[in-house]
Amino acid sequence: MATTTEEVYIAVIGAGGVGSCFLKQLSYLSKTRPSPRLRLCYIAIIDKALHHPDYSEINIETALNRLEAEGQAPPTIPWIIDYLSGAPSKVILVDNTSANSLAEAYPQFLRRGISIITPNKKAFSGNYQLWEDIFSSAAAGHSYVFHESSVGAGLPIISTLKDLIITGDEITRIQGVFSGTMSFLFNSFAPTEGQGEKWSVAVHKAKQLGYTEPDPRDDLNGLDVARKLTILGRLAGLPIESPTSFPVQSLIPQELQGVSSGDEFLDRLPEFDQQMEQHKAAAEKEGKFVRFVGSIDMASREVKVGIESFEKTHPIAALQGSDNLISFYTKRYGDNPLIVQGAGAGGDVTAMGVSSDLLKVLSHIAR
Amino acid sequence: MATTTEEVYIAVIGAGGVGSCFLKQLSYLSKTRPSPRLRLCYIAIIDKALHHPDYSEINIETALNRLEAEGQAPPTIPWIIDYLSGAPSKVILVDNTSANSLAEAYPQFLRRGISIITPNKKAFSGNYQLWEDIFSSAAAGHSYVFHESSVGAGLPIISTLKDLIITGDEITRIQGVFSGTMSFLFNSFAPTEGQGEKWSVAVHKAKQLGYTEPDPRDDLNGLDVARKLTILGRLAGLPIESPTSFPVQSLIPQELQGVSSGDEFLDRLPEFDQQMEQHKAAAEKEGKFVRFVGSIDMASREVKVGIESFEKTHPIAALQGSDNLISFYTKRYGDNPLIVQGAGAGGDVTAMGVSSDLLKVLSHIAR
Repeated sequence: MATTTEEVYIAVIGAGGVGSCFLKQLSYLSKTRPSPRLRLCYIAIIDKALHHPDYSEINIETALNRLEAEGQAPPTIPWIIDYLSGAPSKVILVDNTSANSLAEAYPQFLRRGISIITPNKKAFSGNYQLWEDIFSSAAAGHSYVFHESSVGAGLPIISTLKDLIITGDEITRIQGVFSGTMSFLFNSFAPTEGQGEKWSVAVHKAKQLGYTEPDPRDDLNGLDVARKLTILGRLAGLPIESPTSFPVQSLIPQELQGVSSGDEFLDRLPEFDQQMEQHKAAAEKEGKFVRFVGSIDMASREVKVGIESFEKTHPIAALQGSDNLISFYTKRYGDNPLIVQGAGAGGDVTAMGVSSDLLKVLSHIAR
Repeated sequence: MATTTEEVYIAVIGAGGVGSCFLKQLSYLSKTRPSPRLRLCYIAIIDKALHHPDYSEINIETALNRLEAEGQAPPTIPWIIDYLSGAPSKVILVDNTSANSLAEAYPQFLRRGISIITPNKKAFSGNYQLWEDIFSSAAAGHSYVFHESSVGAGLPIISTLKDLIITGDEITRIQGVFSGTMSFLFNSFAPTEGQGEKWSVAVHKAKQLGYTEPDPRDDLNGLDVARKLTILGRLAGLPIESPTSFPVQSLIPQELQGVSSGDEFLDRLPEFDQQMEQHKAAAEKEGKFVRFVGSIDMASREVKVGIESFEKTHPIAALQGSDNLISFYTKRYGDNPLIVQGAGAGGDVTAMGVSSDLLKVLSHIAR
């Protein structure tokens, strides 16, 4: 029988919007759940890192201030792996970055017994080889990897999909609104009540409200949605090669793909409002509303991302604000899918997904 | 560090709609997840039990047939507790009954180190003392108790609420449609499209389709919804004394409360259609639709169950068939709640919640 693991070492990389919220939640967890003791032993941002040769504990409350004041240039990834592997007890790496370099090193961490929790989509939606490496490395290293917040932030999407599959249900279709930005844009452009904004006006507004990437084309190209679909499709058993290996409708007018800046793009976007109006009018003719959705059909193995139309009372049309909505159609659930909806972006809710992953890892590695 | 727990002993009580589906899922799990080995060592229905003094394994596939052929009169609960406590490894009791007697004995099982998973609402919505006993006994016995399917069947309701709370979010309000029967009745009676059935016709239909209890008054009294709200309210931190300690609107006309049979009730129900029509008409005047909902307001500590009205595009009005919908309003999620919806009843989806609880217990007790 198992003995108690009294301490778990935590390494946190990244302290941006999600990372800083996660540190607050980590502090809360360490106070409200005294066992096992969560010992922060490494913290880093892009240009600074803080750690001690003897793994002595870094106070979570003051970690960011101390990192700012005392942090050194970050070590290399191989050094971090060696350092964490040498800790006196189990270790969890929390990757709160969106860095590719760190994502590509996950297999090496996992193989050395270091568990990983992260909202970073890169590792799970990159090439399929990396996906396979990650899970085989975790098995080999007796470590765990959870990434709930890589789809729908703190919404229980990945855990629900896993539960359905692992208990023997058959997924037939997954469909949803996977991007908070796209949700906000289409809910403004084609609301179920009232007239709606011009497309270019909706994009401007979203940008002003901080709902888009600095260059809105990084949202409008559909790649973020494609990455999330890639993750869910793979979890459901489809060996999707990459997020560019299936049809993704870009909402960037061809003429504006090459313009040099996001600002120039925004300035010229009104010239193309008519294109989007046509989609909207075609849907309205059928009493429907356009939305930007991703879907996976398991029988035909068809994965796609783009504009589709929905009846007024369909949950996808009725979505509000920048909410996400993911529907799981399964054999057990029949015609009416299991639906999860709510905010799919934001520091606090994304960090919540990471924190609940932390508790999952703890349930496996600590008593 | 922990060693591997190679075997976990499973006792299953109840093999009705949920129990028989659970056994199929248990068989699937035992094949697809070889470690730890899940050893069925006890199976019982209301009047028969099968077990071996040496805890030798009962084949899951043939368990029900063998129970039928070889089962003896079931032993007493104290005997079962002694028997299971003596098993050579960790034990999980799966209570697939809705029995009060077994529910009341949970603390004794838990205190002896036997973990419990169950869809049975009774233990968690009975008196508050039992609720407290259950969780203090689990802590004392280093055992686990999970009851996801006691609210919303396999929908991730309880796990989501726990994750929100444990990571430090503040629940402000919980609102939803908690009864598949009530959902079907109101979606038939006051659909967002078309005229809708008379109330008594909807009730007749639901009864014919097997959506109601044998006596439909057992659904219409609102107690099932009150039990589920009691569970969620307690998880959220309200010490709700019992499901009858807050206002619950019964849809049984006063004149029919005392009639002797469900059939007589159904025969006379049309006399009272006018009462329900009044509710519907009042809502329609405001462009709204009546639904039977339960809600918990955390600030005012108000818990209530009854008819309320919703705009056409509100997710609660737009619900289909017999689906449940539960909305969590929290500090982090702001104005737009986290919503989970889908089938909240049925053998397979209820068993799924039990199976995913089994995996949760295994993550804690086995490596």
